[in-house]
Amino acid sequence: MNDVAGRRARGGGGSARRAERSAVSFETARYISRNIPNFEILNEEALQIIEWNADTILEEIGVNFVENPAALDLWRAAGADVKGERVHIPRGLARKLCATAPSQFTQYARNPARNVNVGGRDLVLAPVYGPPFVRDRAGGRRYATIADFQNFVKLGYMSKWLHHSGGTVCEPTDVPVNKRHLDMLHAHMVLSDKPYMGSVTEPSRAQDSVDMSKLLFGADFVDQNTVMTSLININSPMTFDGIMMGAMEVYARNNQATIISPFIVGGAMAPVTVAGTLTQVLAEVLAGVAYSQLVRPGAPVIAGAFVTSIDMNSGAPTFGTPEAAHITYGAGQLVRRLNLPYRSGGSFCGSKLPDAQAAYETANSLNMALLAGVNFMLHACGWLEGGLVSSYEKFVMDADQLGTLHHLAQGISMDDNGQALDAIREVGPGGHYLGCQHTQANFKSAFWRSDLLDYKPFETWDEEGARDTETLAAERVHKMLGDYQAPALDEGIAESLTDFVARKKASVPDAFI
Amino acid sequence: MNDVAGRRARGGGGSARRAERSAVSFETARYISRNIPNFEILNEEALQIIEWNADTILEEIGVNFVENPAALDLWRAAGADVKGERVHIPRGLARKLCATAPSQFTQYARNPARNVNVGGRDLVLAPVYGPPFVRDRAGGRRYATIADFQNFVKLGYMSKWLHHSGGTVCEPTDVPVNKRHLDMLHAHMVLSDKPYMGSVTEPSRAQDSVDMSKLLFGADFVDQNTVMTSLININSPMTFDGIMMGAMEVYARNNQATIISPFIVGGAMAPVTVAGTLTQVLAEVLAGVAYSQLVRPGAPVIAGAFVTSIDMNSGAPTFGTPEAAHITYGAGQLVRRLNLPYRSGGSFCGSKLPDAQAAYETANSLNMALLAGVNFMLHACGWLEGGLVSSYEKFVMDADQLGTLHHLAQGISMDDNGQALDAIREVGPGGHYLGCQHTQANFKSAFWRSDLLDYKPFETWDEEGARDTETLAAERVHKMLGDYQAPALDEGIAESLTDFVARKKASVPDAFI
Repeated sequence: MNDVAGRRARGGGGSARRAERSAVSFETARYISRNIPNFEILNEEALQIIEWNADTILEEIGVNFVENPAALDLWRAAGADVKGERVHIPRGLARKLCATAPSQFTQYARNPARNVNVGGRDLVLAPVYGPPFVRDRAGGRRYATIADFQNFVKLGYMSKWLHHSGGTVCEPTDVPVNKRHLDMLHAHMVLSDKPYMGSVTEPSRAQDSVDMSKLLFGADFVDQNTVMTSLININSPMTFDGIMMGAMEVYARNNQATIISPFIVGGAMAPVTVAGTLTQVLAEVLAGVAYSQLVRPGAPVIAGAFVTSIDMNSGAPTFGTPEAAHITYGAGQLVRRLNLPYRSGGSFCGSKLPDAQAAYETANSLNMALLAGVNFMLHACGWLEGGLVSSYEKFVMDADQLGTLHHLAQGISMDDNGQALDAIREVGPGGHYLGCQHTQANFKSAFWRSDLLDYKPFETWDEEGARDTETLAAERVHKMLGDYQAPALDEGIAESLTDFVARKKASVPDAFI
Repeated sequence: MNDVAGRRARGGGGSARRAERSAVSFETARYISRNIPNFEILNEEALQIIEWNADTILEEIGVNFVENPAALDLWRAAGADVKGERVHIPRGLARKLCATAPSQFTQYARNPARNVNVGGRDLVLAPVYGPPFVRDRAGGRRYATIADFQNFVKLGYMSKWLHHSGGTVCEPTDVPVNKRHLDMLHAHMVLSDKPYMGSVTEPSRAQDSVDMSKLLFGADFVDQNTVMTSLININSPMTFDGIMMGAMEVYARNNQATIISPFIVGGAMAPVTVAGTLTQVLAEVLAGVAYSQLVRPGAPVIAGAFVTSIDMNSGAPTFGTPEAAHITYGAGQLVRRLNLPYRSGGSFCGSKLPDAQAAYETANSLNMALLAGVNFMLHACGWLEGGLVSSYEKFVMDADQLGTLHHLAQGISMDDNGQALDAIREVGPGGHYLGCQHTQANFKSAFWRSDLLDYKPFETWDEEGARDTETLAAERVHKMLGDYQAPALDEGIAESLTDFVARKKASVPDAFI
């Protein structure tokens, strides 16, 4: 087994070469490297207050590690005061333990051109994660299937501004609960060559994810490099359950990355105020990341913050709100002071349709995430209805908007060409720039251009059917899925993955809960 | 004539009291005072380069003051080198002349509770300006009429997050060109009590605006206070036409405010690069504001920047783009270094419908304007189809979203209640915050809540007709216009305004071009 399968598929044996010749190439933008500042909403005094209070929570109130005696042992050995399942962490200890986590790391893809850097000034974009339903214009809202899952992986593979294939792009509810992780991983590995996430629903499924990755990349390569970034949610407030932590332990021991992230609906799982929520988020992240480092010092982690507000009338989570923006900005500052990669943001919305509400809320969320310094953005496209639905149309609509983040992040070029003084001299008062030399030399790259939205004159647009954005997106989905071709993959590797899935599926009976 | 008509209408004679008793009260939020930092995209070196280059433009290339010999005389007397209509302004002179303009000013409304501060850390929101068409769900796209105009003034009056009644909320194309300013001003003065804008399409119409304002506020009050903020566009590149400048001169001489603003489609009226556009914008603003101060030192002005990018495929202006964001952020920094109020931003979009495209582009624009430090945002709601259309539905959709800017700008409260440490202690690991005392004490004001968007569970939403945002907005428009009641106005003043309009209309024949 070669140690970089992606490379072998490109340059390897006859079957790989045949596969490569028949495959079309789909452009993917490099992950974003920011050339603009972060937006820093909290001043030094506020940051210190929150940090002090977070340590107060850890020391005085403590956090629960549930059904996980080994974790309690590790905490005890590290100097925490453990009473039952409650872990009281002395002021400063958690932050000290976090220091062994890398400030940034590479997640490898089977196609090395798709490797991503997670951390620093960079931003990696990954699609929606977790919805049990899908929606498209033709079929409406329905339970997601493995066929939907494969479609979303294909769309992600073909989306220029998406750097990462993600994880549970929807829940394939037609596959048994205890086996669907195998089909999901298989789809990411075979239908895309972008980096992907592993399963977290059971420690054994995390181990399956590692084992399948070893088939794809080679065992030695996986031992020495990070090829998965998986999502470990904290049960807020301040509870770390045994199953999630068990999955995290598998990944950490195998040097694979995890996103350690509170999942908070403000007012329900955290205080109703922003500063209070930030304090709890920081305490939870400190405890979770510190624990990962107890499992394996140096294990790559991303400090996450998934926070929404709540509509106190209906109890529904709300998205794209100013309070969510406050928290995303503030948490970014707190995480940077921990010198860790930061996960937050996404194409969040509460709307049932990919309509104006969906777009307002999503644009609010995407813009704040860029300026908040997010390093890893899960849910960057396709999220609908508070995360209950993966939307085909919204997936491509959002994926198109992600182009704006790439261009925004480039900042303003101040070289002579950017200053354009000669162009201003050439054109002069009352002239126009459309034909001037500077415009001709720059127009192709000067302005971001949507591949989806309508820029036509009214009359043309009207004659062509007066299509709204959802209609344009539905057509684009249809075209993309029609044009899709799988990236080349060594046949031996493909067979070994198929065998692994078949063998694992045969080894246990189906379970649907 | 009383000097504050708005006050007299509240506390004055019997007719005013009767009018007041029958009027309903509509809540309007105070203008935004930011408690968050600005986003500063340019560093000191970049700012200095742009400032140096702008002065190079003014000195070496110069600007044209067209068909305006009096302006040329003023420039000559101020030390500029005037050749024909070209004014070469020595390095540093324009900036020096700008120094007499106030850094902020109050624009008075006839209802003193609606007065706004323009400048400093504040943000005033005004509706869409200029479209010849309107669109609503029931009637589609059509030429705007004075009835539409009146409807938009009513919606603006009733919109909680809108501080300003604006100006040409749509072009009433059924009224002669040379008379429509009278009907427009009359509508703002009578149907709303928020501050408004005057006419700029002819110097004589600017004078009519001043004269009507004197009837509304009293002549002495208008002599001593600013009651209008009117939009003076520069013909980029670097051309100041006699009619626009003539209108500006009328306002400046009467101590009324103007927005002096390039109107730029990048790549056509300015270089295709961001730094080049910023340089030209700064040069134009410097020349325009300096000229206003030559007309009357101390006249209140707002330095504007209306800049879009262009789709080089179709030639159409594009909105909500990263390049527009770069320019809006950068221009804010440059204007702040001039110590002037800053106008930019708006509910910009190119979409033909109030759909997802419209909302993405608008949200991108609104968010950047808040963070860019904009002080006066024209077009804050209702803009559709590149400014060709005032949309009824988008007006109320955008107006609702403006609430997010108010809450974002509040920043993060760091007092004990905000820190919420007692709530975190009370709830503890594994609990929930829904019933806790801190949540009960804060939930009403903790989270911004839309008055329009859908927060219902899927099933309820589906049973109620599965309405999209445009449908919800159409229903809201209908309800608002049905609920509308005019604010109280002294009958004598109302009659004098009606008489003025009738007399002026009778004094000249209709003109339709």
